[in-house]
Amino acid sequence: MTPVVMKFGGTSVATIGKMQKAARFIRQAVDDNTPVIAVVSAMAGETNRLAELVRSVSSVFDAREYDNVLATGENVTSALLALILQTMGVSARSWQGWQVPVRTSSVHGAARILDIERDRLDARFADGMEVAVIAGFQGVSSDGRITTLGRGGSDLTAVAFAAAFDRARCMIYTDVDGVFTADPRVVKTARKLEHISYEEMLELASLGSKVLQTRSVELAMRHRVPVHVLSSYTGQPGTYVTDEETHMETRTISGIAHSRDEAKVTLQSVADRPGIAALIFTALANHDINVDMIVQNIAEDKRTDITFSCPVEDIAKARSAIELLQGRGDLNVAGLLCDESVCKVSVVGIGMRTQSGIAAKMFAALGREGINIKVISTSEIKISVLVDRKYMELAVRTLHEEFGLHQK
Amino acid sequence: MTPVVMKFGGTSVATIGKMQKAARFIRQAVDDNTPVIAVVSAMAGETNRLAELVRSVSSVFDAREYDNVLATGENVTSALLALILQTMGVSARSWQGWQVPVRTSSVHGAARILDIERDRLDARFADGMEVAVIAGFQGVSSDGRITTLGRGGSDLTAVAFAAAFDRARCMIYTDVDGVFTADPRVVKTARKLEHISYEEMLELASLGSKVLQTRSVELAMRHRVPVHVLSSYTGQPGTYVTDEETHMETRTISGIAHSRDEAKVTLQSVADRPGIAALIFTALANHDINVDMIVQNIAEDKRTDITFSCPVEDIAKARSAIELLQGRGDLNVAGLLCDESVCKVSVVGIGMRTQSGIAAKMFAALGREGINIKVISTSEIKISVLVDRKYMELAVRTLHEEFGLHQK
Repeated sequence: MTPVVMKFGGTSVATIGKMQKAARFIRQAVDDNTPVIAVVSAMAGETNRLAELVRSVSSVFDAREYDNVLATGENVTSALLALILQTMGVSARSWQGWQVPVRTSSVHGAARILDIERDRLDARFADGMEVAVIAGFQGVSSDGRITTLGRGGSDLTAVAFAAAFDRARCMIYTDVDGVFTADPRVVKTARKLEHISYEEMLELASLGSKVLQTRSVELAMRHRVPVHVLSSYTGQPGTYVTDEETHMETRTISGIAHSRDEAKVTLQSVADRPGIAALIFTALANHDINVDMIVQNIAEDKRTDITFSCPVEDIAKARSAIELLQGRGDLNVAGLLCDESVCKVSVVGIGMRTQSGIAAKMFAALGREGINIKVISTSEIKISVLVDRKYMELAVRTLHEEFGLHQK
Repeated sequence: MTPVVMKFGGTSVATIGKMQKAARFIRQAVDDNTPVIAVVSAMAGETNRLAELVRSVSSVFDAREYDNVLATGENVTSALLALILQTMGVSARSWQGWQVPVRTSSVHGAARILDIERDRLDARFADGMEVAVIAGFQGVSSDGRITTLGRGGSDLTAVAFAAAFDRARCMIYTDVDGVFTADPRVVKTARKLEHISYEEMLELASLGSKVLQTRSVELAMRHRVPVHVLSSYTGQPGTYVTDEETHMETRTISGIAHSRDEAKVTLQSVADRPGIAALIFTALANHDINVDMIVQNIAEDKRTDITFSCPVEDIAKARSAIELLQGRGDLNVAGLLCDESVCKVSVVGIGMRTQSGIAAKMFAALGREGINIKVISTSEIKISVLVDRKYMELAVRTLHEEFGLHQK
């Protein structure tokens, strides 16, 4: 019988009381004779506490040992949740990544899941185990070291288990009610979406909507795993993330995403010849700068401007990375403009593919409110703009209304 | 090359600062070109915190999950110590029990070490690893579950590694300077012993001297592992625990041990026939009562008195275990006397085997101070008495002086 995967994040297992609530959701599935694979994060705050311990040793450290320390957080939660289920009369046991095993690459701190062996779990389910409580966020490398998958990695664990177990239903319990047309804290009339496509969810996840980790959405899309986001407080039906074909709702725009703390860097009058862009963005990548949008317009007189955006916290690193290039004489930039007071606002919707005029409508609405657009970047199903941070809420609300998202 | 085993207990790794101190002791050995197997406990207080988390779920719990939670404490310390060593330029990595592997029985919470495979460690030492930092107190069962060895289990881990690695020297860093002729808090003139035999250490360990865990001394004795107890504060030479043949010091008595919170239970006028004692002590064992001394004197009129001692905290369980037997009519006890205000004082020394008169000397000294002896029990190398708890310090000091232990 195909199990169901239920994932509980850090806030959903923050206390024994909250774990008991999670256990009741699990028992409902068990009572319906469905085997459950429960995936858990560390108790809220625990991962930060452990990371702080490592950082108090040294700012530069062996990522393998860091992973060893961090993985203990999920070990504790998985065992505690198994114990709670047992007190409810449910046959449950905990599984650490290496016990399953969840095989990953050796890139510690950001490992990729290569394979989940299902034999041991299958055997135990056949023996009467009702719930396998999996320590999320972790795996084991080919040389037997413990790895972690990076922040939000428990979502990835959950989707990977669902993919490995016959595309099982993957229920992500979180501290929000589902996916909304915009952040309800910004837009009072934001509506919960009943369905959203993988593609749209992917754009929303990478655009700063923190409901699901980006890589987990990619994985779900690749394996066509049906994901269901729901509230760990109310257990209310949340949002289904599925193939666009599986839902009939027709709409052009699904939601308005935003990301507050962005910075914009412009390299003025860069030589317009092959290899220059590669030079710049290789240097930025080597300094671990999380570059998001990249915009380059047509050249004039063999010179061009290149603009990119990144999180505000990366701006000092970005500046020094570029100044280092300047110093080496490889790059001859006339000026370096940094703007640390921008935000990103995006319109996302699968219907954009077939409807024209969305961009025009978006820009006109912003213009009417006097919001100046600094940078524009588009993909097949989204349009993003950078605007002054002070206009963020106004921009999101204006676009939410403009595209009629408050209406059913 | 034979490595050295260095074990650091919870107080010796309680903070990053203390771990750095431990790391400096390790580096000294590395600088002498000796490979090091460092065994660590959880940071002081951490095991209790984790156990409390489990108990907050339920007072009755699956010991496998309990072990899973508890073992995380040592995982964290082993990784942090490895990181600290790396910052000092030492090539170190952490090893969890299952990674070595340390194979144990499946008795969770009190597992026995069955085997330590040394191939992986050997290979890494050959590759240039200078220090293997082992998470103590844990292992892995034949079905791949994490086990723990019970309180003080890191001592056992250390001795077991020393045994597996060619009887390596086993250095136990602790918060005392070594083994003393008596508890220095009770007897100001107590002296540190330079040497002590396994047999004596075993009696001292089981008699309440908390320097080394009892099972670890047994294991060291069985495998003839040279154990060296020393201070993690000063690094000063402490006490060597070795074969009696390997040290030349001749003395009759090595030390005076005591155990404060004992209780004495007397079953009056029990039928003196075969099987009665077995009936009583099987019942006590089934109730997990930690019976220590057992005394039975000759019978009169086919009736006899049986006295045993146990920790004060077990007295209520002991009483109800015996009353249950009474109720079933198997036992016909005239009276049940419980005395919860006794303590145990013991004289320990390997020289006792060949010298007579030790007991007489002991009893006379106590008598001179007006200390009434309630129960006597002897083994080949120790004599223990129960006396009123209020006399404990006086009894220990009197005997320490009587046997000349304050003198070199």
